Amino acid sequence: MADELCFMPAARLAELFRTCQASPVDLVTAMLERIERLNPKLNAYLTVMADQALADARQAESDIHKGEYLGPLHGIPVALKDLYLTNGVRTTGGSKILADWVPHEDATTVSKLKAAGAIIIGKAHMHEFAMGPTNVNPHYGPACNPWNPECVPGGSSGGSGAAVAASMATVAMGSDTGGSIRIPGSLCGIAGHKPTYGLVSRYGVLPLSWSLDHAGPMTKTVEDAALMLNALAGYDLKDPASANRPVPDFRDALTGRVRGLRAGLPRRHFFDGLDPEVAAAVDDAIELLSGLGMSFTEVDFRDVEHVAATTMSISWSEATSYHEPYLDRLDDYGPDVRSRLELGKTMTATDYLRAQRVRRLICEEYASLMEKVDVLVTPTIRIPAPRIDECGEVLGVAGGADVKMVLSALTRPFNVTGAPALTVPCGFTTGGLPIGLQIAGRAFDDEVVLRVGHAYQTATAWHKRLPPV
Amino acid sequence: MADELCFMPAARLAELFRTCQASPVDLVTAMLERIERLNPKLNAYLTVMADQALADARQAESDIHKGEYLGPLHGIPVALKDLYLTNGVRTTGGSKILADWVPHEDATTVSKLKAAGAIIIGKAHMHEFAMGPTNVNPHYGPACNPWNPECVPGGSSGGSGAAVAASMATVAMGSDTGGSIRIPGSLCGIAGHKPTYGLVSRYGVLPLSWSLDHAGPMTKTVEDAALMLNALAGYDLKDPASANRPVPDFRDALTGRVRGLRAGLPRRHFFDGLDPEVAAAVDDAIELLSGLGMSFTEVDFRDVEHVAATTMSISWSEATSYHEPYLDRLDDYGPDVRSRLELGKTMTATDYLRAQRVRRLICEEYASLMEKVDVLVTPTIRIPAPRIDECGEVLGVAGGADVKMVLSALTRPFNVTGAPALTVPCGFTTGGLPIGLQIAGRAFDDEVVLRVGHAYQTATAWHKRLPPV
Repeated sequence: MADELCFMPAARLAELFRTCQASPVDLVTAMLERIERLNPKLNAYLTVMADQALADARQAESDIHKGEYLGPLHGIPVALKDLYLTNGVRTTGGSKILADWVPHEDATTVSKLKAAGAIIIGKAHMHEFAMGPTNVNPHYGPACNPWNPECVPGGSSGGSGAAVAASMATVAMGSDTGGSIRIPGSLCGIAGHKPTYGLVSRYGVLPLSWSLDHAGPMTKTVEDAALMLNALAGYDLKDPASANRPVPDFRDALTGRVRGLRAGLPRRHFFDGLDPEVAAAVDDAIELLSGLGMSFTEVDFRDVEHVAATTMSISWSEATSYHEPYLDRLDDYGPDVRSRLELGKTMTATDYLRAQRVRRLICEEYASLMEKVDVLVTPTIRIPAPRIDECGEVLGVAGGADVKMVLSALTRPFNVTGAPALTVPCGFTTGGLPIGLQIAGRAFDDEVVLRVGHAYQTATAWHKRLPPV
Repeated sequence: MADELCFMPAARLAELFRTCQASPVDLVTAMLERIERLNPKLNAYLTVMADQALADARQAESDIHKGEYLGPLHGIPVALKDLYLTNGVRTTGGSKILADWVPHEDATTVSKLKAAGAIIIGKAHMHEFAMGPTNVNPHYGPACNPWNPECVPGGSSGGSGAAVAASMATVAMGSDTGGSIRIPGSLCGIAGHKPTYGLVSRYGVLPLSWSLDHAGPMTKTVEDAALMLNALAGYDLKDPASANRPVPDFRDALTGRVRGLRAGLPRRHFFDGLDPEVAAAVDDAIELLSGLGMSFTEVDFRDVEHVAATTMSISWSEATSYHEPYLDRLDDYGPDVRSRLELGKTMTATDYLRAQRVRRLICEEYASLMEKVDVLVTPTIRIPAPRIDECGEVLGVAGGADVKMVLSALTRPFNVTGAPALTVPCGFTTGGLPIGLQIAGRAFDDEVVLRVGHAYQTATAWHKRLPPV
């Protein structure tokens, strides 16, 4: 029974906890055993908070027994990407620079999760300072994909992805600047939701590039992502980009009804150069959603070809600005991060501002496109998880392009626009690696994105498959 | 009678027009005669729209007679700083680069003023591309101060300031990046209101530095500024920084009651190095407002000493980004603007982003300060209007500082913070030059700023004095 609890989504656990049919202590105990067994193999966690998590589980059990049930996250174990500040617990950012740093406060989202009764079980592996999509980390070793430990889990929230996929956490927090929630979500076969820019506070989340950074949930199901978002969303004065606007109940948005919703298929760019198995799985998903009553039309996301250069100018500049105090310690960074910071130092103010102005045009194009459709449906990534030994700094994949550009090519456009974007598993390669379907929407229309993803999961079972670990 | 109409504020004219006791045709006819007589002396207008204004006045008269009265701006002549785009009318930006440019659409604010029945009477002189506070312009000659034509009107909206002060327009539009509404407002002895950042659209206003630029009214009275703001304020999808929030009735905010309002006096910086006559006039104004029931306490605006460097890094960078298409024509710019663009080219992305991050800290300081008081009261400028021949590129004034830095030292902090700030005349030097009082408030609390300014004007007569032209 206890190990079974590890495989359950939060929504199911919540029912068992609320009705005292199961206890958070049993779950956390079993999960810590799984972590002890699997983490040496997967390297999903940089820090496991075993004692604190067990104490919190006992407290949750006691509170629930006393009738003080806090809601669906009460007693649910959460893995935090190791760039969420945790009061009294080291927060490395996957770096050597911050290897011994212990913050004195929690990120706003961490406070919110704790207030909702969630249990922080550990700090998850990440690409150094979130500056890459592979989680091959020079300081902490690579994290591994639970579906095939010789492959990357994707990044930069790869530890979070691996932990949820391998049932070493029920839910997790990731962050997404160019795809860092959705890439590991897709490669690990779980749900990952990048909320609309401004919906979830980034206060206390180490920045990569603040105008592109998003904080969000990584979960076994879309329903769990909605439950997480209910706890996470809302205005925070401490995040300058936080939106001061009403927040809906995201669980209520999962009506199961998608009939009449209009989906756009941006064939150009988003369907170019796909691995054939990815293409086939996404085609099947589109057919299934059509069967549920959604209409599909081909659309063109104009100027999407400028996204890569735009995001790089912005993120290199902003990252280098953030890292200015450490730039005399360049040798303490891994080679890929170091080279980005060195590039960032060469950017001029006009380079940066030109990129932000191009970005504005891209946002206008996107807003105009989304007047005609409710969501876009695309693959999340063109390829399944690459092997760790293929992910050197610059590696020819799919015609010589850098693997990191390939991994983020379809996710980055929604960082530039700040639009909500969700990945859900939609199939597997013959080699047993997950394939992700991306659903993107209008700004602050996270509800419809989650509704489509949930309807898809209600009609399919891909998200129920467990990795062979 | 007709010339008297020229001297009236919009609120008084509105009563006469609404009740058909006077006609916009009489006003515009008289005003065009004044312009013909005075503009050769003051150079307040770069383009006078005589035929169109007369036609519009006839239309307004006819509409009002038919009972189609549009409200208090119906039939009121407006001068537009020559960076407001006007459909079919050249918009020079005070530059050689755009000397012959005729836009094909109106700025959002121009459309709004027209919809409110206002009459555009001409395009006002400005510092080249708004990049300076003197309106000594190498391409169009200097604009002159109506109180003493050997002095500058202040800038960069100096033509607008001179036009309203000399009754060559009833009201005007300026723009303010470092003080460009309030500096000519103060030096010309009129009201100038820089609204909260985001309250008034800048779409169709040539940018200087978009994260610091504000559009706003310059008027004979604070009441007129409120009437203008009623027409101007509101969300505009076309301005990325426009705030989507409800807009109050600013005229209703002018209750005359200021008893119990808490004013802060930021003595450090804002009261340092004042011309003695400026200091005395501001002290008198503070005493008067105290007598009306406002409480005054000394406060410290921490980090205000970082404002100058911060705004310069931001504005040089953003200006150079905007001017990138023309940077191969540097010789077509005046020497001061050219040197700014050359400096802007040397700024790095990290210079720019560091400035924006310092700015954030300054905004936090300001927000914290404004928890204790409702408004700040300060001089608008440390000195009265300098002579035109003193305003070379870099001139030693007040201990060797550049005159342009002196002119904007007290206004810039409210561009960095985006806070509303108003100037009203509060006295005259023995030489007959106006002195300005600045009232600044919390973001989106323009109402209280205007209320204080209006109460002050109700109790004083400085704003009724007419210049000797």
